[in-house]
Amino acid sequence: MVRIIMNGCNGHMGQVISRLVAEDKETEIVAGIDLADKGIHAYPVFTEISACDVQADVMIDFSSAKAVDNILDFCKAKKLPLVLCTTGLSEKQLEKVTETAKETAVLRSANMSLGINTLLKLLQEAAKVLAEAGFDMEIVERHHNLKIDAPSGTALALADSLNEAMDNQYHYVYDRSQKREKREQKEIGISAVRGGTIVGEHEVIFAGPDEVIEFKHTAYSKTVFAKGAVEAAKFLSGKPAGMYNMSHVING
Amino acid sequence: MVRIIMNGCNGHMGQVISRLVAEDKETEIVAGIDLADKGIHAYPVFTEISACDVQADVMIDFSSAKAVDNILDFCKAKKLPLVLCTTGLSEKQLEKVTETAKETAVLRSANMSLGINTLLKLLQEAAKVLAEAGFDMEIVERHHNLKIDAPSGTALALADSLNEAMDNQYHYVYDRSQKREKREQKEIGISAVRGGTIVGEHEVIFAGPDEVIEFKHTAYSKTVFAKGAVEAAKFLSGKPAGMYNMSHVING
Amino acid sequence: MVRIIMNGCNGHMGQVISRLVAEDKETEIVAGIDLADKGIHAYPVFTEISACDVQADVMIDFSSAKAVDNILDFCKAKKLPLVLCTTGLSEKQLEKVTETAKETAVLRSANMSLGINTLLKLLQEAAKVLAEAGFDMEIVERHHNLKIDAPSGTALALADSLNEAMDNQYHYVYDRSQKREKREQKEIGISAVRGGTIVGEHEVIFAGPDEVIEFKHTAYSKTVFAKGAVEAAKFLSGKPAGMYNMSHVING
Amino acid sequence: MVRIIMNGCNGHMGQVISRLVAEDKETEIVAGIDLADKGIHAYPVFTEISACDVQADVMIDFSSAKAVDNILDFCKAKKLPLVLCTTGLSEKQLEKVTETAKETAVLRSANMSLGINTLLKLLQEAAKVLAEAGFDMEIVERHHNLKIDAPSGTALALADSLNEAMDNQYHYVYDRSQKREKREQKEIGISAVRGGTIVGEHEVIFAGPDEVIEFKHTAYSKTVFAKGAVEAAKFLSGKPAGMYNMSHVING
Repeated sequence: MVRIIMNGCNGHMGQVISRLVAEDKETEIVAGIDLADKGIHAYPVFTEISACDVQADVMIDFSSAKAVDNILDFCKAKKLPLVLCTTGLSEKQLEKVTETAKETAVLRSANMSLGINTLLKLLQEAAKVLAEAGFDMEIVERHHNLKIDAPSGTALALADSLNEAMDNQYHYVYDRSQKREKREQKEIGISAVRGGTIVGEHEVIFAGPDEVIEFKHTAYSKTVFAKGAVEAAKFLSGKPAGMYNMSHVING
Repeated sequence: MVRIIMNGCNGHMGQVISRLVAEDKETEIVAGIDLADKGIHAYPVFTEISACDVQADVMIDFSSAKAVDNILDFCKAKKLPLVLCTTGLSEKQLEKVTETAKETAVLRSANMSLGINTLLKLLQEAAKVLAEAGFDMEIVERHHNLKIDAPSGTALALADSLNEAMDNQYHYVYDRSQKREKREQKEIGISAVRGGTIVGEHEVIFAGPDEVIEFKHTAYSKTVFAKGAVEAAKFLSGKPAGMYNMSHVING
Repeated sequence: MVRIIMNGCNGHMGQVISRLVAEDKETEIVAGIDLADKGIHAYPVFTEISACDVQADVMIDFSSAKAVDNILDFCKAKKLPLVLCTTGLSEKQLEKVTETAKETAVLRSANMSLGINTLLKLLQEAAKVLAEAGFDMEIVERHHNLKIDAPSGTALALADSLNEAMDNQYHYVYDRSQKREKREQKEIGISAVRGGTIVGEHEVIFAGPDEVIEFKHTAYSKTVFAKGAVEAAKFLSGKPAGMYNMSHVING
Repeated sequence: MVRIIMNGCNGHMGQVISRLVAEDKETEIVAGIDLADKGIHAYPVFTEISACDVQADVMIDFSSAKAVDNILDFCKAKKLPLVLCTTGLSEKQLEKVTETAKETAVLRSANMSLGINTLLKLLQEAAKVLAEAGFDMEIVERHHNLKIDAPSGTALALADSLNEAMDNQYHYVYDRSQKREKREQKEIGISAVRGGTIVGEHEVIFAGPDEVIEFKHTAYSKTVFAKGAVEAAKFLSGKPAGMYNMSHVING
C-alpha cells in the first residue's frame, strides 16, 4: 500500500484525487495539507505543512506556486518523493526543484494525463519528419470560460516539445490580427479558445502542401489528471533521488 | 446565354472562373479586364475599363479595392449589374456601392460559397437560442501560410452575423495571451491558424455547460467560390436596381 | 415550486436529476419510483407506481421500455403531465402515448439536450438548401464502449429529421464494406464509433463539390440531459393535454 | 536526372504525376504506358509494355491490379526498380511481388503521402502505450461519393499497423447496427463515410477513460500522392534488389 500525503487536499484536484484513492486498493491518503480543515476528508488534515508528522511514501501536490517553496523544503528534509503538479513556478523555484531532486525523487509535469504525455513524445518524432519537410506547426487549445491564463500550460509544453525537436529555432505567435504579413516558417502559432465548461482540448496541426496532419487530445473530466497523479505517486514511491517525468511512468 | 465581363481576369479567381464558364452552357465571358493582356484568354482583354465597349449582361469583379471606384462608375453609367467579390473596401467606397445600387443591381459578398452563405443564416438562429441561453461563441479559421490578413474576411462576416442576431452587444477578442482574466460573456473570440496550402476552413463554436455545438465549413478548392460567383451572375442578370446578397441567390 | 415524481430514481439519470433538482430553487422531487428503495434519496421512494399517492405537477421518466405501459396508465388516470425520456418504445406503445396525450400533456424526446434539439431544427433548413443542391448527407456518432445499441437513438432522430425535410425520400446505410458500389444520392450513411467513456457525440456532414459543412454536438456529461429534462418538466407543468417536444420548451 | 517510365500515364494519377515531373528539375518521364496513346503527353506512349524499349532508371505504376503481372515480369527481366502504387493485389500477385524483389528494387505502398506514412509509424508507438493501457481503437475514413470500395485501402493499412503493434490480436468490425452487444476490447471499428468530392481523410481514435486521443490526416488534392510517388522514384533509382516501403524514403 502506497501512503500518500495530499497537498492541496481541499482544492478541486485534491478532492478528485481523494475520491479516486478511496476506491483504489494499492494506495491510501494518510494525511492532507491545506489552508483549513473543512472536515470533508476521512484522513487528518494539517493547516501547516511543518506540523505534518505522518509517515508516508510520497507527496502529491496540486496547490499554488506560492506554497511550493515550503513543500520543497519539507520533502528535501524528509527525503520524501514528490509528485509536483503545480504550474507557474518562477525561475528561482525551478532551480530549487533541481536542488531538491538531488536529495529525493521529484516528478514534475504540466499535464498528468496519459494521452498528453504520449503525444509529447510522438510529436517530437512527427516534427522531425514533417517540420523538417517544410510543414507549418500550429496549436489550438480550448478551455472553460473561467480559466484566466492563456495559452494553457499544456499548450506551451506541447510547443516547447515541438521546438526542442527542432533545435529551439522557432518562436511563438499568439496574435495575427495586428500585422498584415504572411506567416514566417519558423513560427508556431498558438490559439486559445475559451467557452462553457470545456475541461481541456489540445490540437497540434502540421500543415503542408495539400495535406494536413492533426494530433488532438480531449479530456472529458479532471479524473484523467487525478489518475495520472496517482499513477505517478505509485511509480515514484521508493525511487532514488533524481528528476523524473511522466514518460518514465508510461514506460514503466 | 448570360454574357459576363470578368474584371480581374488574370488573377487566380479570374482564371478559375474562366475555366468554369468555358464548360458551362448557360454563361459566356465576352470580355476581360486586367492590367495587361497576357494572351491567355480566348475572349478580348481590356487594360482600361473605360475602353471596354462590349455588350454584356453582368460583370463579375475579383480585383483589388483600389480598382473598385472605376468599376462602380462604369457599372452605374452603363446600368450593368455587378457581382462584387473584392473585399477590404473603405467606408467611402461602401457608400459609393450603395449609391451605385440605386442605378443598377449590385450583389456584394465576402464569401461566395453556398456552404458559408447557408451557415450565415443558420448561425443567427443558433445564436438566438444558444447565446441567449448563456453559451459562449468562438470562431476559429484556418488558411494557407501566404494569407496576409487575419482574421479572414469570412470569419469577420460570421462574427458580424452572430453579433447582429444578438443586437450587436458583443465585442471581438483576437488575443488572450496578454491578460490574465476570465472570459467576458459578451465577447466573441476569433482565432486565426495559418499553415501549408489550406484553402479555407471556418469553425463557429457554441460552448455551454457540459455541451458544445460546432458549425464547420471546409473549402477544398477555389472552385467553390468561382461557382458561387457564376451562380450570382446568372441570378443578377436582368434584375432591377438594388442591393442583393448571396441569400437571394440561394433562396432563388 | 414545480413538484416532480421521478420515475427510475435509482438509475444513473435518475440520480443526476435528483442532484440537479436539489440545487434548483424552482423545482423539488416529491417522490421517486423504482424497483427498490435503496435509501439513497431524501424523498419517499415507491416500488410500485400504483402505490404512489403523492400530489405532484409532473412526472419525469428515465426508466425502461417495459415500464412505460404502467406509467402511461398512471399519468392518464391522474391527468399528470409526463416528460417521457425512455427510448426504444414499440409501435403499440407509441400509439398508447398518443392516446395518453389526449388526456394529459406528454413531452417525448430521444435527446433532452438544448444543443441537439437546436440542431434538429437547423438541420432541416440546411438539408432543404444543401441536399437540394446535391450535397450528400452522412452522420457519425460516438459513444462509450458499454452502449449496446447502434446507431444511437439520437443519430436516428437526426437522420429522420433530415429525411423528413426531404420528403422522406432517403434510406439509411449502416455498412459499406459488403458491396463494391458507388454511393447512391438518396442515402444517408450512419456510422457508429464506440470507445472509452465517451458520453455522446453526433456529427452531421453535408459533402458537396469541393466543400463540406459539418454540424457537431458534443455532450461532456449526462448533466446536459438532466438539465433538459428538468426544463421540460417546468415547461410542461400546468400545460393542457397534448403532444409536446423539446422545440416547444426551447421556443418558450 | 532520374528517368521514369510512367505506367498508367493516361489515368488521373498518371496525369498529375506528369504535370509534377514537368516542373521538377531532378526527374523526367522518358516513356508512358497505357491502353491508348491519346497524344496528351510530350513523351512517347506505348500501348504494350513489351514494346517499351526506352532506357530508364525506375518505373512508377498507378494502373490496375490486372496489369500488375505483366509489369512485374517486365521489371524483373530488365532489373528495373518499381514504385508499385496499384492496390487490390491478389495473394498470388503479392507472392510474385516478393519474387520480383529478389531481382530488382520494389517499393509497394497503399498510400504515398508523407503524412499517412508518418502516421503509420507513430500509431504503432501510440498503440503500444494506449491500447496496452486499455484504450479502444477506432478508425473513421471519408472519401468522395464515387469511390466503390469501403473501407479504403489506407484505412485497412492503418488498422493493420495498429494490429501488428498489438501482436495481431485484434479483429475488425465494419457494422454495429446488426447486433445489440457492447464493444469487445480486441476489436478495431472501421467506419467509411462517403460524400461529395472529398479527396481522402483518415482519423484514428484512441478512446480511454475520460480522455480521447485522435490522429487525423487530410489530403486536399491528389498532388500529395503524386509527390510521394516521385520522391519514392528518386529514392529507388540505383538501389539494390529488395522490398522497400515509404518509411525508407522518409528516413532517407
